[in-house]
Amino acid sequence: FGQKRNHCRGASGAGSPHRLPCARVASLSVCACVCRAASPQEEEDSAMENIVTEKKAEESHRQDSADLLIFILLLTLTILTIWLFKHRRFRFLHETGLAMIYGLLVGVVLRYGIHMPRDGTSVMLNCHVNASPATVLVNVSGKFYEYTLKRVLSSSGNKVDDVSDNENEMLRKVTFDPEVFFNILLPPIIFHAGYSLKRRHFFRNMGSILAYAFLGTVVSCFIIGLLMYGTVTLMKHVGQLHGEFFFTDCLFFGAIVSATDPVTVLAIFHELQVEPDLYALLFGESVLNDAVAVVLSSSIVAYQPTGDNSHTFEGMALLKSFGMFLGIFSGSFALGVATGIVTFTKLRDFQLLETALFFLMSWSTFLLAEACGFTGVVAVLFCGITQAHYTYNNLSRESQDRTKQLFELLNFLAENFIFSYMGLTLFTFRNHVFNPMFIVGAFLAVFIGRAANIYPLSFLLNLGRRHKIRSNFQHMMMFAGLRGAMTFALAIRDTATYARQMMFSTTLLIVFFTVWICGGGTTQMLSCQRIRVGVDSDQDNSVSVIATEVPERSSTKHESAWLFRIWYNFDHNYLKPILTHSGPPLTATLPPCCGPLARILTSPQAFENEGQLKDDDSDLILTDDINLAYGDITVNTDGSGVHTSSGAGFASGMSSEDLDRELTCGDNEVVMRGTCLVFPMDDSEPTLKDPHMRF
Amino acid sequence: FGQKRNHCRGASGAGSPHRLPCARVASLSVCACVCRAASPQEEEDSAMENIVTEKKAEESHRQDSADLLIFILLLTLTILTIWLFKHRRFRFLHETGLAMIYGLLVGVVLRYGIHMPRDGTSVMLNCHVNASPATVLVNVSGKFYEYTLKRVLSSSGNKVDDVSDNENEMLRKVTFDPEVFFNILLPPIIFHAGYSLKRRHFFRNMGSILAYAFLGTVVSCFIIGLLMYGTVTLMKHVGQLHGEFFFTDCLFFGAIVSATDPVTVLAIFHELQVEPDLYALLFGESVLNDAVAVVLSSSIVAYQPTGDNSHTFEGMALLKSFGMFLGIFSGSFALGVATGIVTFTKLRDFQLLETALFFLMSWSTFLLAEACGFTGVVAVLFCGITQAHYTYNNLSRESQDRTKQLFELLNFLAENFIFSYMGLTLFTFRNHVFNPMFIVGAFLAVFIGRAANIYPLSFLLNLGRRHKIRSNFQHMMMFAGLRGAMTFALAIRDTATYARQMMFSTTLLIVFFTVWICGGGTTQMLSCQRIRVGVDSDQDNSVSVIATEVPERSSTKHESAWLFRIWYNFDHNYLKPILTHSGPPLTATLPPCCGPLARILTSPQAFENEGQLKDDDSDLILTDDINLAYGDITVNTDGSGVHTSSGAGFASGMSSEDLDRELTCGDNEVVMRGTCLVFPMDDSEPTLKDPHMRF
Repeated sequence: FGQKRNHCRGASGAGSPHRLPCARVASLSVCACVCRAASPQEEEDSAMENIVTEKKAEESHRQDSADLLIFILLLTLTILTIWLFKHRRFRFLHETGLAMIYGLLVGVVLRYGIHMPRDGTSVMLNCHVNASPATVLVNVSGKFYEYTLKRVLSSSGNKVDDVSDNENEMLRKVTFDPEVFFNILLPPIIFHAGYSLKRRHFFRNMGSILAYAFLGTVVSCFIIGLLMYGTVTLMKHVGQLHGEFFFTDCLFFGAIVSATDPVTVLAIFHELQVEPDLYALLFGESVLNDAVAVVLSSSIVAYQPTGDNSHTFEGMALLKSFGMFLGIFSGSFALGVATGIVTFTKLRDFQLLETALFFLMSWSTFLLAEACGFTGVVAVLFCGITQAHYTYNNLSRESQDRTKQLFELLNFLAENFIFSYMGLTLFTFRNHVFNPMFIVGAFLAVFIGRAANIYPLSFLLNLGRRHKIRSNFQHMMMFAGLRGAMTFALAIRDTATYARQMMFSTTLLIVFFTVWICGGGTTQMLSCQRIRVGVDSDQDNSVSVIATEVPERSSTKHESAWLFRIWYNFDHNYLKPILTHSGPPLTATLPPCCGPLARILTSPQAFENEGQLKDDDSDLILTDDINLAYGDITVNTDGSGVHTSSGAGFASGMSSEDLDRELTCGDNEVVMRGTCLVFPMDDSEPTLKDPHMRF
Repeated sequence: FGQKRNHCRGASGAGSPHRLPCARVASLSVCACVCRAASPQEEEDSAMENIVTEKKAEESHRQDSADLLIFILLLTLTILTIWLFKHRRFRFLHETGLAMIYGLLVGVVLRYGIHMPRDGTSVMLNCHVNASPATVLVNVSGKFYEYTLKRVLSSSGNKVDDVSDNENEMLRKVTFDPEVFFNILLPPIIFHAGYSLKRRHFFRNMGSILAYAFLGTVVSCFIIGLLMYGTVTLMKHVGQLHGEFFFTDCLFFGAIVSATDPVTVLAIFHELQVEPDLYALLFGESVLNDAVAVVLSSSIVAYQPTGDNSHTFEGMALLKSFGMFLGIFSGSFALGVATGIVTFTKLRDFQLLETALFFLMSWSTFLLAEACGFTGVVAVLFCGITQAHYTYNNLSRESQDRTKQLFELLNFLAENFIFSYMGLTLFTFRNHVFNPMFIVGAFLAVFIGRAANIYPLSFLLNLGRRHKIRSNFQHMMMFAGLRGAMTFALAIRDTATYARQMMFSTTLLIVFFTVWICGGGTTQMLSCQRIRVGVDSDQDNSVSVIATEVPERSSTKHESAWLFRIWYNFDHNYLKPILTHSGPPLTATLPPCCGPLARILTSPQAFENEGQLKDDDSDLILTDDINLAYGDITVNTDGSGVHTSSGAGFASGMSSEDLDRELTCGDNEVVMRGTCLVFPMDDSEPTLKDPHMRF
């Protein structure tokens, strides 16, 4: 990037403004501060000026291209190095960690290596308007230029001099609008997470995952918030605090660092084939707690007591915040699920159209949620989960591959971009506030908060769980509480106040530490905790989970499995047939009185497919005590791994071991593909007289 | 989009500026026009203000989301309707035409249906600076806001009132920065065109395509330019011209409407399987003339005589423009080819990394070209062609599919977005200048320009061509001269002057007319011109081209085929082995003295693959008189369709008909896949003693 910018030879700076009253047009507060020119030779310069302006615009465009090129080359470098690492089977450094390192290096070079003089394209206009306008029209010697608000520099006037004089132009250039992360980079990451969540082990552990994600995140947020408040109070006493830091700020910090992102750990888990239950717990928790953390943080920001003293406790405001949390979360959830369901594509014959539609629907979920005031990221997450569950089954085979690959690629690029930007920003961000006490306090708080999330909850969950979450699993989950993209995006979103700047700097350090140290030590931790690796997930449920630790079977049918079974049956019998082409036809599952309705709602393909019924989701059936009954066969898969199959229609003579293998197949891919359970059926239309038909 | 924007309750507009001298800091022309406040109560409003600002930013973000949502819903609607059309086999309207119609409808609604009062977020600051600054710092009651230059509204001061008062806020919102088209939407379209250009028939007609694209575009540009100059002169006499319109403007208009985009026609050709030679001619021409038109137009803009009267003819400036054309074109070409070649990926085992790298390299080509001052679009085109030719062979099978599908999707989305925006902009663009005389003149000029491109060139080409371009082909090419995305993007790029505005409005009408009328009439035109459809391209070269119209064979071995053969041999023997894993190993093709060098440059895979030599490009071998010799077999494929195979190593006993089919297979997909010619070989290492080895 040896680009040198032309120094603009603009005005020699003699614009002398004179007074002019501001006009108030209708209800619009257009404040026209006309600073009319004194110099007379403006008309004849017009042509020259045009050329200069054009050249400058071109220069600026070139510069932008060069800046973006830096990031692309960074990503390219990361990819090449990662390839080398994968090739040599180095596992101590994940691609995201590497991207951060490269980002750091480039940041150092930009900060200390390149000293570009600031060009004179910045003009300071001081104008009294009570509210900052979104757009400003500037009358430059007869031409009108429209300017849009980019950012607020600082609230304290004396800082602007630093900014406008000493600021390295290059640094300013490589700084992105923080909203870019939220509106462009984060959505594909989150959607991909949701879209690849469709796994048997996730649903098997759904109760625990929900508990960790919701309860755990809230607990962690409040504990970290309280601890940080203690730290901040201490700092105030010692005299280390140079600005305001309220309790809500502490809570906000708690919320943002509660979003875990164990992408590094999961990559290693996947590669080493760690026990799938642990994988599912970690993955599910991290996906959902991102959503919780986003909504939680925005609720905390919304906590604004109305009274005189604006930072005291107030019940009403708290209630409002709590209501907002529920409202935003459920709104985003509903919206995501709704759009996921609406994407009821029948374009199977035209893969390109199908893929394009799928992509657009996912994106419009995000935009719709944002336009409605909900949280787009959360909506996209649930949209992804819903689409994986229903829409995916409607897609043609080719589109299934296409969409998966597309979002995989987008996820990969966005993730590495964010992490390399993270490295970069450690040196290029201009308002870092590194306070050793705060940093130490934060590390401690994060550690304690994670512990307070995992251990007590695991204990409580184990009371209800048949398959206990073992202590080595708990230690591993504790260890794998990395902070990543979401934490960073939340922290960089607002760095206006002193408190936020300190939080941002500290957050960066936490991310670096956890990604490098915890991420890098995953393999060591795995072997230290004696967690089995190389588990073929085809066999794990009969071997690792069931055979090793279920002496007390059958008696404790715990609640969540029961609740889940009800949902599963409803989903399988009614939702699936309505929303997808797979599943049993509604005519078979609805009571006879609803016959005509059922015939309308069932798609023709469902009848066609009836002979060879495909159901992608039968693999998420719990292993304990669910009777899989369809047609005239019944497969009783109980917890001890003993399968009893009854019925006459078992045409192909498939053994129960085969069935078991079928049940669990396809699970060792991160993104699952296709049909796992094919029930051979006899040709007769299933009738409701068969008692097995009702689940 | 029933979104209502909150009316901002900002200042009541009493900011009274006072005089302050502008400071000149070092070489920087920072002009600080401080308009200090008179009102006293600013400090206490600070907190309230913050909240208002935050709310406004949120509102604005919501509004942006809603606006983008309009476009996404438009695209979704287009996709659904197109699916219906495809399903019912309607061919009179292509998706791009449909996208335009929907865009038009939404444009009408936005223009006449929604009357939103303008909110007060716009402030007019009049300030005398000679050059427009890129960023403006505005001091709003102690806080500093940074504003960036968005656009130049107009050069005539009296127009601003219209803009700032009567302008519909919604219309302003849905107006994109024209550079978005050039920097975001056009690159994937052009890259996709280049990437899917790798077809046998393209290379067979390369000479003609190059002639049409280069010579033809320049001829068309100048003829249209001259005719428009005549029209403009006439308009001036009649008194219809209300602004300046120079000869360079006319030439510019000629350049932008010379870029043809027969995407509609080609889609129908593909569906109906029109004769592949016609397809190749049209496709190749349209892809390359986009590149020519871009560079041509920027060269014309660069034509700026230095003298007093800035719009007269000047030899020096013309020469400079011509030099620029050559410089930019060859620079972009070289850059594109270079990056295409550099993407020498060996990451075959990690498809995701491979695809990501491929994507990033293509993108960085664009950015690099822009940063160097070349034309990114042109670089991307040649990068695409090069990557299809070399890199594609190095990719793993899965990555080949992935990259193709990815760029296909991007192309589809970008194209339909541009066309729907085109429809929208007919009603939402605010500075339309529709001049009936100019429009009639332009339509005539475009028609004559296209005719002057196709017919004379075809005549000249036919003198040299063995397979004549028949008159019905010529008529079809004439008819298929649609204008599309590139023309639009070039026209909207600069709409500052009266001349450019008139051009833009006229261009829009030309695009609408050609896409709807010419695009819609393609099937009628095909049957009217008696062009054969349903040609199985496996057989066409033996049936349609050769058997029907080559009575005078073998005598006229024309130049271009000979030149092409030299290039082909060089490419096949040296470039391919160095740059890809396919092709014969260099040890076999280089003279023995270069043995060690050859061994270094040849990739291990090439040796491995030697046994089953794959070469994707053997299908681009001319049918006339090329001796395909490798190993110890010689296949003489001559123009009359009689194939003689000699040699002993023809192990599998493949008949010449089989070979012919192999040679031409895979060509009826738009995007080709994979290996077409597999030469069975004996196991012995080919030695240079074999005389057949040297081509």
